[in-house]
Amino acid sequence: MQEMKQLHAIFTRTEAGIKSFRNMIQPLIDHAVDEHTKLYYHHISEEEEQRLERLEDLIPRLQKLHSVDYLEQVSDRELSHLLSDLHLERFGLHNFREHLELALYEFKADTERQQLNEMREHTQQDYLHMKEIMAKLSEKFSDAIPIKGNLHDHDHGHDIHQVDHFHASSTSSASVGNSSSQQNTSATTFPSNEKKGLTVGSLRHLSS
Amino acid sequence: MQEMKQLHAIFTRTEAGIKSFRNMIQPLIDHAVDEHTKLYYHHISEEEEQRLERLEDLIPRLQKLHSVDYLEQVSDRELSHLLSDLHLERFGLHNFREHLELALYEFKADTERQQLNEMREHTQQDYLHMKEIMAKLSEKFSDAIPIKGNLHDHDHGHDIHQVDHFHASSTSSASVGNSSSQQNTSATTFPSNEKKGLTVGSLRHLSS
Repeated sequence: MQEMKQLHAIFTRTEAGIKSFRNMIQPLIDHAVDEHTKLYYHHISEEEEQRLERLEDLIPRLQKLHSVDYLEQVSDRELSHLLSDLHLERFGLHNFREHLELALYEFKADTERQQLNEMREHTQQDYLHMKEIMAKLSEKFSDAIPIKGNLHDHDHGHDIHQVDHFHASSTSSASVGNSSSQQNTSATTFPSNEKKGLTVGSLRHLSS
Repeated sequence: MQEMKQLHAIFTRTEAGIKSFRNMIQPLIDHAVDEHTKLYYHHISEEEEQRLERLEDLIPRLQKLHSVDYLEQVSDRELSHLLSDLHLERFGLHNFREHLELALYEFKADTERQQLNEMREHTQQDYLHMKEIMAKLSEKFSDAIPIKGNLHDHDHGHDIHQVDHFHASSTSSASVGNSSSQQNTSATTFPSNEKKGLTVGSLRHLSS
């Protein structure tokens, strides 16, 4: 079954991505300069660890479903379970993309930034592709199995995804360095001070 | 069934907690001073929105299972689905506690800090209670339904949960103010500079 092959490829790729990403951020946890930073990256790493455990269960099940012959033997219960898990992992891809975008504000070396950005782009493509696959599966199985939840992408009401975070993060150090000459022109309730452009990610690199 | 009543109470409480928490952090998204900060709180809010949607599906199912008579009519498929969802929501409680701890580094007003800390304490109690309930359910249904995953709490290998983040976050402004007199004595690969103690949360309050 074509969709299962495509999903298997998507989740095999993101499984490798989780492992690379967790390895990249582990030093940030081990050598964090304060408790907030430590908790921040520890939290992200743990969420991806939880996702990895779920994928280690899901990927072999998708592999079995490559075969059309086998699919005919799948029970309604198994299919319902699978579709429910796929629904969850669609959000998992979305959240992983955001974890990668957040990390772009931390890493300044070109090699690491390139690696993060490639993972981010692949994850975004996989996320969009998966939405299409889920729509097909929903149509295919709608008579037999109700698909839990809906297909909206949680991007409603926010303009955050219109931002090129790869670009924004690359200029964050510069804007920090020049922060006293930059004015925040938007309405804000936060106290204004000359360091207002700083973030967890940019701080590490103030001296670089 | 006693366990279902207890779980229903836990998830009804955390459902209200999600709504309060998302309302508290929405202004941080609306008035963020930079793209990184905006993405950071947007991401946390979205993850809790995803959890809220799952709980809106789960809570009515738990309510139905209050009645022992009804439980006898529950199919293996339904029970398997329920246990799988409960396994996921145990991690949801754990992650929510960490979202609350991260937010404590942002909020400085006593009222808001107290509210966040109470939610954090309730969430931690609910998380520990849920682990006990899951162990009981695992034993009760082990013959009929295999319970997916394991019961470890993802806290292994980290000392992050030994930290009193309520206390740590309350002193972060002070430590920022005195950062030039504080030395980081742990081995670190990060460039050292006098602003090294700063975080997203503490920066907003440098001038206060």
